[in-house]
Amino acid sequence: MAGIAYRHLIQKKIVLRHYLFDSCRSRTGLLCRGLSNRASECLLDADSRLLQQEQHGSAIDLSYPTYMVWGANTGVGKTLVSTGLATSILRSEESALKDQTDRLERVSFQGCSDKEMSRLSAKNVLYVKPFQTGFPRDSDARFVAQKVSEFGKMHYGGLTQELIVSNLSVHASAAAQAAVCASKGEYEGIYSEEHGRRDLCASSLDCKTLWSWCNAVSPHLAVSMEGGAVGDKYAVDSLRETLWNFNKNYEAKATVDKPFPQSFRTWGIVETAGGVASPGPSGAPQCDLYRPLRLPGLLVGDGKLGGISCTISAYESLLLRGYDTIAIVLIDFGLGNAQHLRSYLQDKVPILQLSPLPKLSSDLTNWFQQSFETFTKLQKLLEQAFVGRLQRLEEMPKKASQILWWPFTQHSFVLEKNVTVIDSRCGPHFATYKGYMASEKEKIVQQFDACASWWTQGPDPQLQQEIAREVAYTAGRYGHVMFPENVHEPALKCAELLLEGVGKGWADRVYYSDNGSTSIEIALKMAFRRFSLDHGLLYGQRSSVGLKGENLQFKVLALKGSYHGDTLGAMEAQASSPYTGFFQQPWYSGRGFFLDPPTVFCKDGHWHLHLPNILNVFCGADMKKGWKSRDYIFAKDRDGSKLAMLYLNSIGDFLSRLVAEQPDVHTAALIIEPVIHGAGGMHIVDPLYQRVLVQECKRRKIPVIFDEVFAGCWRLGAESAAEILGCVPDIACYAKLLTGGVVPLAATLSQEKFFQAFEGSSKLDALLHGHSFTAHPIGCSAAIKALKYYKNPSKNSNFLPSKARLKELWDQDLVADISAHPIVERIISLGTVFALELHATHAESGYSSMLASNLIERLKSDGIYARPLGNVVYLMCGPMTSVTCCTDLLQRLFSHLKVF
Amino acid sequence: MAGIAYRHLIQKKIVLRHYLFDSCRSRTGLLCRGLSNRASECLLDADSRLLQQEQHGSAIDLSYPTYMVWGANTGVGKTLVSTGLATSILRSEESALKDQTDRLERVSFQGCSDKEMSRLSAKNVLYVKPFQTGFPRDSDARFVAQKVSEFGKMHYGGLTQELIVSNLSVHASAAAQAAVCASKGEYEGIYSEEHGRRDLCASSLDCKTLWSWCNAVSPHLAVSMEGGAVGDKYAVDSLRETLWNFNKNYEAKATVDKPFPQSFRTWGIVETAGGVASPGPSGAPQCDLYRPLRLPGLLVGDGKLGGISCTISAYESLLLRGYDTIAIVLIDFGLGNAQHLRSYLQDKVPILQLSPLPKLSSDLTNWFQQSFETFTKLQKLLEQAFVGRLQRLEEMPKKASQILWWPFTQHSFVLEKNVTVIDSRCGPHFATYKGYMASEKEKIVQQFDACASWWTQGPDPQLQQEIAREVAYTAGRYGHVMFPENVHEPALKCAELLLEGVGKGWADRVYYSDNGSTSIEIALKMAFRRFSLDHGLLYGQRSSVGLKGENLQFKVLALKGSYHGDTLGAMEAQASSPYTGFFQQPWYSGRGFFLDPPTVFCKDGHWHLHLPNILNVFCGADMKKGWKSRDYIFAKDRDGSKLAMLYLNSIGDFLSRLVAEQPDVHTAALIIEPVIHGAGGMHIVDPLYQRVLVQECKRRKIPVIFDEVFAGCWRLGAESAAEILGCVPDIACYAKLLTGGVVPLAATLSQEKFFQAFEGSSKLDALLHGHSFTAHPIGCSAAIKALKYYKNPSKNSNFLPSKARLKELWDQDLVADISAHPIVERIISLGTVFALELHATHAESGYSSMLASNLIERLKSDGIYARPLGNVVYLMCGPMTSVTCCTDLLQRLFSHLKVF
Repeated sequence: MAGIAYRHLIQKKIVLRHYLFDSCRSRTGLLCRGLSNRASECLLDADSRLLQQEQHGSAIDLSYPTYMVWGANTGVGKTLVSTGLATSILRSEESALKDQTDRLERVSFQGCSDKEMSRLSAKNVLYVKPFQTGFPRDSDARFVAQKVSEFGKMHYGGLTQELIVSNLSVHASAAAQAAVCASKGEYEGIYSEEHGRRDLCASSLDCKTLWSWCNAVSPHLAVSMEGGAVGDKYAVDSLRETLWNFNKNYEAKATVDKPFPQSFRTWGIVETAGGVASPGPSGAPQCDLYRPLRLPGLLVGDGKLGGISCTISAYESLLLRGYDTIAIVLIDFGLGNAQHLRSYLQDKVPILQLSPLPKLSSDLTNWFQQSFETFTKLQKLLEQAFVGRLQRLEEMPKKASQILWWPFTQHSFVLEKNVTVIDSRCGPHFATYKGYMASEKEKIVQQFDACASWWTQGPDPQLQQEIAREVAYTAGRYGHVMFPENVHEPALKCAELLLEGVGKGWADRVYYSDNGSTSIEIALKMAFRRFSLDHGLLYGQRSSVGLKGENLQFKVLALKGSYHGDTLGAMEAQASSPYTGFFQQPWYSGRGFFLDPPTVFCKDGHWHLHLPNILNVFCGADMKKGWKSRDYIFAKDRDGSKLAMLYLNSIGDFLSRLVAEQPDVHTAALIIEPVIHGAGGMHIVDPLYQRVLVQECKRRKIPVIFDEVFAGCWRLGAESAAEILGCVPDIACYAKLLTGGVVPLAATLSQEKFFQAFEGSSKLDALLHGHSFTAHPIGCSAAIKALKYYKNPSKNSNFLPSKARLKELWDQDLVADISAHPIVERIISLGTVFALELHATHAESGYSSMLASNLIERLKSDGIYARPLGNVVYLMCGPMTSVTCCTDLLQRLFSHLKVF
Repeated sequence: MAGIAYRHLIQKKIVLRHYLFDSCRSRTGLLCRGLSNRASECLLDADSRLLQQEQHGSAIDLSYPTYMVWGANTGVGKTLVSTGLATSILRSEESALKDQTDRLERVSFQGCSDKEMSRLSAKNVLYVKPFQTGFPRDSDARFVAQKVSEFGKMHYGGLTQELIVSNLSVHASAAAQAAVCASKGEYEGIYSEEHGRRDLCASSLDCKTLWSWCNAVSPHLAVSMEGGAVGDKYAVDSLRETLWNFNKNYEAKATVDKPFPQSFRTWGIVETAGGVASPGPSGAPQCDLYRPLRLPGLLVGDGKLGGISCTISAYESLLLRGYDTIAIVLIDFGLGNAQHLRSYLQDKVPILQLSPLPKLSSDLTNWFQQSFETFTKLQKLLEQAFVGRLQRLEEMPKKASQILWWPFTQHSFVLEKNVTVIDSRCGPHFATYKGYMASEKEKIVQQFDACASWWTQGPDPQLQQEIAREVAYTAGRYGHVMFPENVHEPALKCAELLLEGVGKGWADRVYYSDNGSTSIEIALKMAFRRFSLDHGLLYGQRSSVGLKGENLQFKVLALKGSYHGDTLGAMEAQASSPYTGFFQQPWYSGRGFFLDPPTVFCKDGHWHLHLPNILNVFCGADMKKGWKSRDYIFAKDRDGSKLAMLYLNSIGDFLSRLVAEQPDVHTAALIIEPVIHGAGGMHIVDPLYQRVLVQECKRRKIPVIFDEVFAGCWRLGAESAAEILGCVPDIACYAKLLTGGVVPLAATLSQEKFFQAFEGSSKLDALLHGHSFTAHPIGCSAAIKALKYYKNPSKNSNFLPSKARLKELWDQDLVADISAHPIVERIISLGTVFALELHATHAESGYSSMLASNLIERLKSDGIYARPLGNVVYLMCGPMTSVTCCTDLLQRLFSHLKVF
């Protein structure tokens, strides 16, 4: 069986053929000293590949294991470990395969020819040194290439298995190129005339230096001394591309129909420069720079005095950025560092120790021989981690379908293959897993999270990192501490920021809770209490309060289509909808009077007013002619218009009629989502209507609640939706973006008079609503960081300090163009929100519509993760998303619309 | 004015008197070579002080600034920086005081005599090196003492201001002592016959080495080589004590009535050993070891190659543990590390750079002279941070009273002085701030959080740290990602753990939400849907479903006194209470049938059964005779008892009568808090009654919901309360302890048949309830860590694997004794909960009672933070709290009860 086949393989003779050559090339020209034409071709080829990178998006290859080699400090032996690991892989006897019998059974070796056997046993290792300084004198890639060749020769002398070693430097600064020229061949080493194009039956080691500089200093200093700057994105994309292409060449030769056996024959090793947070060429710490790839890694620890501390700290810096560290390897300096690290990091990461280095570098070969067992152990650990990760990624959709219960999801519709496995996120991008299928490699694919993770997200990669630090610090400092009668810095500071920000000019108090829905229930309780007192509906002392009137009832005034959350109290404040039926919530009764509001939208590049019938009949054509520009809709001078008078009369009549007809039923609060009805289908309510409504309620001493859970904290381009609306509430609720979208936290802000309504001589007068995690420090800290960041012009280039607004993110011409597409019923765009409603017959529209599915699938395959809201498709970005990115999203959307 | 007074001071002549002496002493005996009797006395004195430490609890002195000096690596110059800082402080011209004019105005210098002026201008610096290895040859304390003396001489030559320098080593290993003896005076240096008792008019530098070892290796290795082990707690307490006593001596001479001016004259510098995570003598990284003190610090960065990375990582390790780092100082090695760190850590921490070190150590004096300006700048930064911190701590109660709105709190009752300022937490302890008053120093006081931060807390210091890491990693990896139709590792793994743990044997699906209240609303929706289908109450297809019967209503069956959360849907499932009146929630109607349950409690060391009247009349005396031991109450063999039959009949009758009397009103779910009614006053419901109730409901196809939000996840000593009750639910809710108590997260577990009730051909069949942060990765990760930790015997020594229970935490004899106190009405103790109800007349009892306030205040002043539940006082610990600690809590509580 399989095991036998492998035993047969290792008895084959192995021979070394090595092709070592260095070359370097500037980014604009070519320098291929001493290289044959074929080698030049190869370089050109590498270049053209980089240009093709958009063709497979930003995919990370998962068809073979690739590990970052990090250092706890500089000079800890990263290159030695890379060399040892490469040697171990190239020498290995497919042992991991033997261990993985279940996987092996998929592969049949019976009847393989000798040639096929050779091919199947050939190993291919890619070693990449993205940034090399001190070049050409120093070249870690050359070291690896040379040493592996030597060890290979020593160990396999006389065997017939071939090993082809190549060493290539892709880009070099002008100074580094000049140094190579000046060296007159010294550093080209023992390269062959033949380029090492791989022989399918031979093992190979491809060493690559991506960028090199002449000065032996940190890359960012080398750049400042000799030029050759490299942008972070370009560097990361190039590395991803290099890794992707490495196994692309190998795919053709795979006869086995499963990727695993091949995985173990192909490996990638990426060696970083210096310590984990040492700067790359742009100055960004490498642990930040490489984060978009989030490749798993091994950390080379420090065995010297002080090395325990450096190693723990370096490990924690990787951890803080969401990296997986599979093992720590360190060279013994006789201080027992490995032993100590093992006791401290038990259960977290295995620690491997290498014997002390020889005094003479000529003895290094012996040292590698001695260390072979350790490197093999390391290789095993890395193999196991790789297999474990892939197995888990592969099984996740199935397990999820078996044990999870998603909200708002008809599970019958969700096929396992359509479950999105989210491996991580970096700023606005999900990293999602795509399994092996239809001969496509397993991979991690980047998708723009156009749901802004369900309306909560703010972070760009930098803010995500800053919030991670803040959250880490706060967890370390506080964990959680209970709130009543206590104060802690995060809760106080967050409250101060809210009152200076969204609450500026009207709010006095902050009441924390856990999510939008609870913040609404609290707001209603505040409003009802104040209303009871203001309207003299109670008698007696507060502690033994009674109601005037047996049948007294409180209802809210609200707008049809508004949504305030899923707990019963919040649901009661909204009009009946698919969410509220007996089948969903038998206790819903709809405790509100619901007005049908006018809305505005864009179609054919023009902004239109849509009036409900009750208003439409009284409205002259001049009053509803619409607007060329969206901004006029929000102009305050509309307040004096005839339309404003029409709105006022309609609202006033409605309220007066209620009082007359149902004297015991009080309209005890107005609750609105200012400007946009989010979950109700992304409708912009005519702001004039909401403004008139607020003023009329205030006049009647009906407390006014703004539900800014969706719209607040820059969602609509201003800190609060109230600013856009042009009037202030008595009470307002914030959540979602509040914490930068990382953990649940909500705040209900109110004026002092509401607070005073709960003061009294008894605890029973107090607002008796709370949650254990009220004002939890981690959420408050994240909120502090996010609230400051959004409006810091040095962090958020979208923020316009003079206007206290975000710049226009959605190209208005493009919006107009899209709105003219026949399939588009209407469009809205405001702040970070763009939404379009697809034209549909009545039966297809509404929440239950499946019409949008097609478009959503197209967007997903194009790297945009979206989720429809009935027949409404929206794109939502964060306050820091660039205009370029938004334009790209619109263009892609538009291109997909065109095929309909 | 004040400014003039200070200018006058600096013109005074300053003279140096220096007394340098080393001494070292074993922990058991004394070694005072060459010391006079007075010096010996001083040592004895130091020793006796250590014994007194319990007298002021575990207070951290805030009356003067103290900073930790951390190193990014070993050999980065911590001692040089400590020396420079000490020199700067001793030389400084009270400049910070001049800047702080608002504070200065409190101090009047007019009419001061010259002697008073000298006294007021005298500076006192304490330098502590807790762990010194390589002693006596290496002594950082001696270096500081010698250098400061030299610089003082050079700079102030001929001035009359005195500087008294002392150097003292408190403990030394036997080997270190022997080395001191063998050195024949070499290392005692130039000590005076007189001990440097401070002259009130002279400045002083007191250098102290707390523990020393002979071998020049890491302290943990030195301990293994030569003994002299020091426990972490002892080390931390000794350091705290040393810091506390330093300024104790100075208090007497303070004439000014405000602490600030004195603060700037008195400073503490604590120099750590090696890097931030270098091991202390026990092997624990110092950053963990010193965490209970959470002293602010400065980090000495690394200016060498690789130093940027080390410095950033060290900074992040401190951050991850909740430390405040006020400044980073590093010595220039010509690599621009400071400049780069400044750009990366902008807005976070200031970076100061010191000039390159001289090649010859004899030139060090010049280097200090050159660096004086930088050290002065550093001193300023530390002063500002100190003043800023104190000002903020001081103002927090007032600001909190002005802008925060606490839940469940009658603000009228909360005096500013009673607001607890929580500066941080470490495991079960709050670090709370106590302001300057009644001549007591400002300080940080440790309090045991006996509210378990409102019933959420699990962590000991180690788990807090582990969760902080996990939360950091998850924030870095995911931030937040939306959940519907997606899967991510934390959500899946957490669900798996829940199903293997609390849901074992009955649950199939996990539905996430944000808190206990939302998890209950979801559970009810699940139950109602299943009930509708099981009882054939609907007609038509699910997507166009209709109800059979116009007046159909759903109610729950629940127990009086149970509590399920504050959102309306959860409130509706509980009986009316002070929480539910019109004044609190006008929309509450109480949609349940509420049974009055029998309870059990301990009084006079005996466990009693309390029956409601309806049961009591039918119950024979033999059936209610109670139990000697609590455990029998939970025995399954009670199921066959006469009492069980009585319970069954009573419940059966009740349900049958409901069906007969109100045919349209369906009892569509049973919801109970298993075993304990928490918020309802800490009552143990007779588990037999709940068991019978559950069985009867299951028989009638009424879905059974367990609200384990309070009782689950080890709160009652077992993973789920269901295990203690001895029967399983259909649906159960978990929150609070779920995440280790750090962030809100809830899970509703259910059987598959409930999930199936939501499958269908329309999205409208699905469970349309969700929150944006559903299954947020940070919460799920914390939960994974916590759930595993609680039941890992190597982490939680309370966990008994054979029984799958926690050991008994509350000394049952002591519980019996307390229960016999006349003021005690009843007691319960189970798992992590101990509660006692104070005897009270009817008018005083209930939630509104203030009776317990007195006891609570007494507990607080004794280091136990508690909050009453009406006239119930409880102590709640975490699953890892030691029996010793619980016994201590009980004893203290008992001692305070005795005075009543």
